[in-house]
Amino acid sequence: MKTIILISCPDNQGIVCAITGFISKNNGNIVYLDQHVDKIADIFFMRLESEFEAPNFSIKDFKSAFKENVAQPYDMKWSIEMEDVVKKMALFVSKYNHCLYDILSRYHSGELAVKIPLIISNHNDLRHIAEQFSIPFYHIPVTKGNKKEVEKKQLNLLQKEGVDFVVLARYMQIISPLIINKYVNKIINIHHSFLPAFAGAKPYHAAFKRGVKIIGATSHYITEELDAGPIIEQDVITVSHTHSIKDLISKGKDLEKIVLSRALKQHINHKTIVYNNKTVVFT
Amino acid sequence: MKTIILISCPDNQGIVCAITGFISKNNGNIVYLDQHVDKIADIFFMRLESEFEAPNFSIKDFKSAFKENVAQPYDMKWSIEMEDVVKKMALFVSKYNHCLYDILSRYHSGELAVKIPLIISNHNDLRHIAEQFSIPFYHIPVTKGNKKEVEKKQLNLLQKEGVDFVVLARYMQIISPLIINKYVNKIINIHHSFLPAFAGAKPYHAAFKRGVKIIGATSHYITEELDAGPIIEQDVITVSHTHSIKDLISKGKDLEKIVLSRALKQHINHKTIVYNNKTVVFT
Amino acid sequence: MKTIILISCPDNQGIVCAITGFISKNNGNIVYLDQHVDKIADIFFMRLESEFEAPNFSIKDFKSAFKENVAQPYDMKWSIEMEDVVKKMALFVSKYNHCLYDILSRYHSGELAVKIPLIISNHNDLRHIAEQFSIPFYHIPVTKGNKKEVEKKQLNLLQKEGVDFVVLARYMQIISPLIINKYVNKIINIHHSFLPAFAGAKPYHAAFKRGVKIIGATSHYITEELDAGPIIEQDVITVSHTHSIKDLISKGKDLEKIVLSRALKQHINHKTIVYNNKTVVFT
Amino acid sequence: MKTIILISCPDNQGIVCAITGFISKNNGNIVYLDQHVDKIADIFFMRLESEFEAPNFSIKDFKSAFKENVAQPYDMKWSIEMEDVVKKMALFVSKYNHCLYDILSRYHSGELAVKIPLIISNHNDLRHIAEQFSIPFYHIPVTKGNKKEVEKKQLNLLQKEGVDFVVLARYMQIISPLIINKYVNKIINIHHSFLPAFAGAKPYHAAFKRGVKIIGATSHYITEELDAGPIIEQDVITVSHTHSIKDLISKGKDLEKIVLSRALKQHINHKTIVYNNKTVVFT
Repeated sequence: MKTIILISCPDNQGIVCAITGFISKNNGNIVYLDQHVDKIADIFFMRLESEFEAPNFSIKDFKSAFKENVAQPYDMKWSIEMEDVVKKMALFVSKYNHCLYDILSRYHSGELAVKIPLIISNHNDLRHIAEQFSIPFYHIPVTKGNKKEVEKKQLNLLQKEGVDFVVLARYMQIISPLIINKYVNKIINIHHSFLPAFAGAKPYHAAFKRGVKIIGATSHYITEELDAGPIIEQDVITVSHTHSIKDLISKGKDLEKIVLSRALKQHINHKTIVYNNKTVVFT
Repeated sequence: MKTIILISCPDNQGIVCAITGFISKNNGNIVYLDQHVDKIADIFFMRLESEFEAPNFSIKDFKSAFKENVAQPYDMKWSIEMEDVVKKMALFVSKYNHCLYDILSRYHSGELAVKIPLIISNHNDLRHIAEQFSIPFYHIPVTKGNKKEVEKKQLNLLQKEGVDFVVLARYMQIISPLIINKYVNKIINIHHSFLPAFAGAKPYHAAFKRGVKIIGATSHYITEELDAGPIIEQDVITVSHTHSIKDLISKGKDLEKIVLSRALKQHINHKTIVYNNKTVVFT
Repeated sequence: MKTIILISCPDNQGIVCAITGFISKNNGNIVYLDQHVDKIADIFFMRLESEFEAPNFSIKDFKSAFKENVAQPYDMKWSIEMEDVVKKMALFVSKYNHCLYDILSRYHSGELAVKIPLIISNHNDLRHIAEQFSIPFYHIPVTKGNKKEVEKKQLNLLQKEGVDFVVLARYMQIISPLIINKYVNKIINIHHSFLPAFAGAKPYHAAFKRGVKIIGATSHYITEELDAGPIIEQDVITVSHTHSIKDLISKGKDLEKIVLSRALKQHINHKTIVYNNKTVVFT
Repeated sequence: MKTIILISCPDNQGIVCAITGFISKNNGNIVYLDQHVDKIADIFFMRLESEFEAPNFSIKDFKSAFKENVAQPYDMKWSIEMEDVVKKMALFVSKYNHCLYDILSRYHSGELAVKIPLIISNHNDLRHIAEQFSIPFYHIPVTKGNKKEVEKKQLNLLQKEGVDFVVLARYMQIISPLIINKYVNKIINIHHSFLPAFAGAKPYHAAFKRGVKIIGATSHYITEELDAGPIIEQDVITVSHTHSIKDLISKGKDLEKIVLSRALKQHINHKTIVYNNKTVVFT
């Protein structure tokens, strides 16, 4: 049985030993340990994978003992995940299919250790892809007047299916606090620029106009402020005057799907910790 | 004798043949031709290198014939440069030495086909480097009140030495229109971010705060609007939560010097055309 | 009607004007022109897109006139393609699905201007994907003894379907001259290393063993010598000691599919010329 | 007082706690800890920075206690370095100046925490640069017959000056076991290709001939087998058919100096561990 522990707490002497000692005492074997200290914020971070072979190992007891003996004394924010518990991931899409295809292909190949109980879209354009991969598809049209109802319907679906986190695979609509507050640091977006440059609509058009020599894509957790949430992953590609806006869009699509899938995997594998509107992403 | 012709004009049928035909008729041999059309702006661009072996080839006559027979009929903006005419480049520096060292090392190695008649600085810190490379160094301190006089002194020096273009090698001061207007598209700056992200002061601090996973550097021609001029060259490097602001600065310095030197070479080799606040940079 | 002309010939004075003049005389409008000279091999290359609006424009007459008036006088190797003629592309696959999924997703989205009449595989593993996208799938098992028959069957299928070029999307089998000679510079392979490093089998294992800090992928036209054909496209990604072989394979897959799709597009858009076992790839 | 501990040993339960507990017991504060396990080789690696404020802290006693209580029980290879002990670095150069200029500029700026007691060269070409930076320069010409004497002279100089490690800044000569055996994993070379591709002489010429779309540079510790030692750092840059061999050399120079300087810093900051002819490079 493998567990993944994520910790953040005020930096203090003796933390590493307290944690690793606790694992040892519980007959665990540490198979991965990475830690980091933000010296300006004075915060300690750790990710630790450990294996427990005892036949009567109880995750409940382990969590409770960890809380009492380690987490509380050091004032930790923490989570303990079990590798074999598969999370449920919802996809929100609109009309662009490249990220959807990429995610579903990986899903189908067993590359992503999740279940995908549903896909939600404001358009019907990508229904055939959902059907190709046999995943329930919900078409919830968005108009100027019905935003609130739409989000309620979306939230109902998410909660009914027990969704753990949400991926906006080029959904193109703003998500309101109604949903954000239920899924804090659990809604992953892909934005088609190297943020903070070109936040908002039509970043490729803006990049073309500005004459940049590099374009990018950014995957981040969404927050109430548009395109300003904690960045998980970014990548870029060089462009030149020879590239039209259409070329930028085409090159950008490849970036978007790769960057989003990397961010997804970081999240799925419990490698991210959010603090101060940024992320620690363990390798 | 090798000439480099740079052209921009309204796109039209027959331009390429008109130009290449003119070169042929003047017994020139085309050794490089690259052209580009911005289909949105409907502008045609060309860079053409040609060799003329005739012993009595006159650049003056050639220019005059080109103007009459090619440039005027097609309403061209154009320039004709001779490869063996060495331009004069001035350096403006402040306290950071990495770009200065990099440029002077390349200069000393014969990598840059220019003369450097002078270095101007608002501080005395880098004088010893100028002396190491035997280049006149002018210390012109800047205070809140003396900006205008300073620029007059700077301009006098530039004009007295016949400087063709200026490189701001981390000069850290704003240049006013007094100088900009005398050197339009001839003042090259290096900014320590991937513009348009993090324009202005302290970009590494801003990047650290925003938690980006990539930092960059941008070389551009300066215009009156700060950090908003036509971009010549950009490059980036990945960073992570493990990097402190000091680390970003250190990694960034390597980017800055490489990006600036690439931009310099593009400019020196007459490979850039500016239009609509962006650049065509021929390969 | 848009045509794409690809040319290579001994370098000579007046070629550019001869070609552009010919287009003009035939009432064509040049919308793209790029040329290159390999000064060591003394070979001239050009790619030229032109549009002809004449209602009675005949591609047959145009080709014949081009041959007589331009190609023969300059001793050119040349081809003239029409943009609206859609080529037929066959896919060879084995057990890995990432390149297949990526290509079919793009195909389905209209990103690739080709027809895919068939997929051939030595295994049945990917049949369901072919069916997902409604493309005929031929399972032709390969054993030690039946290589020759297999290739005959493959060739028959290719010829029966009028296939123009072949993509080895991680086919993992060596193609013999029987097929290569029928499709010279028309079989595109993806190799999972930055060639010429780690040619042959198991490149990720070799990369792990050697402890490289960068891995890559290479798309190339196949020739009789294994992994030694003209390179069309390469890309790389950084790795470190923290990555296991499994990690390299996973990161590499993303490279492979992107690099292969870029190479495919270059080929489909008639942007490649092969000479001296390397390529000119126009932008 | 800050110490850096580097450890490798057979992987075992309880190692992390044993080490961090030992630091705690000695009133040290851990400011950085990174560890890694090569699961195939079953080897554990750690880098640990800790600060000791006790006025009577003795590094000698600390090492001796560490050896007895930690290193021996776990069968460790280990070293303990003190941050404020400055190492001595020798430079070997030949005729190319870009790496030398880059290193000396960084050195002069205080970027490299080393002393450079001497530069050794088989040519006199770069003597003026050594003089510019006031560093003793030894010209030891190499002929076919005098290799052995040359290396003896070199070794004498290194030992007389108490040199800790050596940097081959494009030295272009093969180093024999006579010197290698005295400086195991302490001679850093820069090779101008992305190894293992294009080992040996003239890699840019070979890259041009092969028609690669990416060139690279590799910094590695030298071993008896040419260009086959443990890789510390690599980087690459894209190229195309438009680049001549001269262009590759020019682009490559920028790579070489950056890659070499990164490797240097990793070594100087005690971030590298060598095993099985590869490196762990901590971030």
